[in-house]
Amino acid sequence: MTEEPTITTIAQRAGVSIASVSRVLNGLPTRADTERRVLDAARELGYAPNSAARSLKSRRSNQVGFAIADIGNPAYLAMIREIQPLIKAAGYRLVLHSTDTDTADEIEVLRGLGERYIDGLIMVPLRMTPEHLEMFAAARAPIVVIGGAPDGTPVDNVRTDSRTGVRLAVEHLHAIGRRRIGFVNGPTDTVPGAARSAAYAEALAALGLPHDPRLAEVGDFYRADGARATARLLRRAPDVDALLCANDLIAAGALDVLRAAGRRVPEDVAVAGMDDTDLATLTWPALTSVSLGSAERGRVAAELLLDRLRGGEGPPRVVTVRPHLVVRASTAGEEAR
Amino acid sequence: MTEEPTITTIAQRAGVSIASVSRVLNGLPTRADTERRVLDAARELGYAPNSAARSLKSRRSNQVGFAIADIGNPAYLAMIREIQPLIKAAGYRLVLHSTDTDTADEIEVLRGLGERYIDGLIMVPLRMTPEHLEMFAAARAPIVVIGGAPDGTPVDNVRTDSRTGVRLAVEHLHAIGRRRIGFVNGPTDTVPGAARSAAYAEALAALGLPHDPRLAEVGDFYRADGARATARLLRRAPDVDALLCANDLIAAGALDVLRAAGRRVPEDVAVAGMDDTDLATLTWPALTSVSLGSAERGRVAAELLLDRLRGGEGPPRVVTVRPHLVVRASTAGEEAR
Repeated sequence: MTEEPTITTIAQRAGVSIASVSRVLNGLPTRADTERRVLDAARELGYAPNSAARSLKSRRSNQVGFAIADIGNPAYLAMIREIQPLIKAAGYRLVLHSTDTDTADEIEVLRGLGERYIDGLIMVPLRMTPEHLEMFAAARAPIVVIGGAPDGTPVDNVRTDSRTGVRLAVEHLHAIGRRRIGFVNGPTDTVPGAARSAAYAEALAALGLPHDPRLAEVGDFYRADGARATARLLRRAPDVDALLCANDLIAAGALDVLRAAGRRVPEDVAVAGMDDTDLATLTWPALTSVSLGSAERGRVAAELLLDRLRGGEGPPRVVTVRPHLVVRASTAGEEAR
Repeated sequence: MTEEPTITTIAQRAGVSIASVSRVLNGLPTRADTERRVLDAARELGYAPNSAARSLKSRRSNQVGFAIADIGNPAYLAMIREIQPLIKAAGYRLVLHSTDTDTADEIEVLRGLGERYIDGLIMVPLRMTPEHLEMFAAARAPIVVIGGAPDGTPVDNVRTDSRTGVRLAVEHLHAIGRRRIGFVNGPTDTVPGAARSAAYAEALAALGLPHDPRLAEVGDFYRADGARATARLLRRAPDVDALLCANDLIAAGALDVLRAAGRRVPEDVAVAGMDDTDLATLTWPALTSVSLGSAERGRVAAELLLDRLRGGEGPPRVVTVRPHLVVRASTAGEEAR
């Protein structure tokens, strides 16, 4: 590291007061010759334009935040891959917040908006509390929420229709002849967990299948939890012939347990995941999965935010990305590569 | 969004000049009663402490940068997962730079250090140019480089010993009876690509195996490139009985191609990857892989950077993380789960 010019060394070199240097560097009105002397001295000393000083002047940080629960989740990764190049092309840096599924931490990120270190925020909240809504309403910078938000949420919202997604998967499992269709969910006090539970019950009812509580298990949205939840479900309902998993990580855990238990996939138990992440084509057999348009949701969220940052006005917008089912070997042997 | 108090509205409320407000908010010496009036007015108007103003005062941004080539690479993800909580616990936010394997973009990030929007930087350069070294030498903020850096590089460096890693894998493939051991590498003008090519040739020589150029292929560090490179290699050297791949993504591509070609893994062709990422346990068969300690390198890099940010002095440090081989089903049938 080399020695850095300070406000003091610039003042000495320019032969002006420290306050004058401060005024010039902060863009406040100053006598023309004072300004010239300060800027000359700053240049001669190799003073680098300070982003803090410039953003104080412009009231911009040139940064956009992205707050997610878990950096390890490939669905969020798919979003980052779309968001990062878009905001970079628009001249912004990406500040990444991994909140480790901690709601208090999410609130902290929202509070940070008031400190102006980011000009806008894209957030994927796992839970939506009254405090979230309060912070949204009071926010002085644009926010885009990815995920289900209550009607009237005062920020732009990009959501998917996971209810339809779950229905597509259950209908597919039913169509290939399965009647004991289990569901391995994440925590049902989360936005996605609650929506998927309701949709599962609804889809069974629409097909005239009984809702057997032994067929539903709750774990967490990770592979190891998915494995444990599947093991519990298998013990309790050994006649299960299909498993819908609330994301691909859970489904990967389910495949581990089924393989260890000697159950063939899909012959004995068909398995479907959700999110259609990179993971779905890595497992063997490859995973049938409900695409909830993660990449598209990321792209749309970035576009909505950039529009607001360019001064786009108008009431909060809601964009819904339609899900679709991607069928692979884990539910259809003949479609295996 | 609600209306935000400005330096002008605070000045009006406090009955002082705009310059006085600026002085107070910038922490410059001011008469005590002026300071009190400004701070009272700011509080009454709901003025949030501005991070730009504070960082101007403290000369700190409370941000740490992490610059990587490709956010989709799980080896970098393993690093982020270690770095993020460590720097967060120390009071820093993480600014993520995905440079898309563009060297000019890496140089741009280094230039950005002069603008002080980050207090320190962890970087994983894919190529190390003279310009990199110049920027390192001139940097006014601490930098930690993950990856091979030339001796005398004027910043802290966390490296692995990929030469030993490649040797461990080649020795293992030799030990299970393979004699036509192929190598699917990434671009050899990258730091990891060049090191791995040299190590492969060295390991073959040490085992007394001939270096058959038909057995070496170069693609890129992605799955689709790995698949294409493997297909070329198979056509040219159909008697290949083992493949070492320069990372796990390439190995996943190799598995795709071998499966499509009807070659059994590991019976016909044993396959090993490098980096030992999450991916290695998702493929079927699970991948034998050389762990280059990605998580540990991330952790050590964060610790070195935080030490510098706390004022740690002394010459640049080099920490080497030792590789080890993780044997799974793709090279050892009996070890399949």
